[in-house]
Amino acid sequence: MIKATITVKLKPGVLDPQGEAVKGTLHTLGFGEVTDLRIGKTMEVWLDADDPAPAEERVKAMCEQLLANPVIETYSFSLEEGV
Amino acid sequence: MIKATITVKLKPGVLDPQGEAVKGTLHTLGFGEVTDLRIGKTMEVWLDADDPAPAEERVKAMCEQLLANPVIETYSFSLEEGV
Repeated sequence: MIKATITVKLKPGVLDPQGEAVKGTLHTLGFGEVTDLRIGKTMEVWLDADDPAPAEERVKAMCEQLLANPVIETYSFSLEEGV
Repeated sequence: MIKATITVKLKPGVLDPQGEAVKGTLHTLGFGEVTDLRIGKTMEVWLDADDPAPAEERVKAMCEQLLANPVIETYSFSLEEGV
């Protein structure tokens, strides 16, 4: 079993209204030191596979076909074996 | 400036319908090796602060008051200085 941990973030410059809203709420709660806040997704994907080299290609294909929107998002991932 | 990278995940056992839906779509796309998939959030928070020790306490307070729901979620974070 291989576990992929994928992080999908908005590209710099892409508006993040959800992040702006959370930043505003943190200010209201007294956390005025927050100057910026960006929200992304993290996905843990367990694969029925043993060899990390082809698994890496498969996870890359998943990100490009479904998990990330290449127009506005970037993705990165790491693999762990034996989980 | 200090940057906190916060990861918020659903606790084990908490249903993740969004993750189930994405897993189903990956199967439809031919990624049948995916056995499980869980979706969480990642937040990048920039703080106007220099000393990481109090910043750590502040980020912990943000997570407990707003960013994570302690009933169903767990959080973890790391800090980077000078970003």
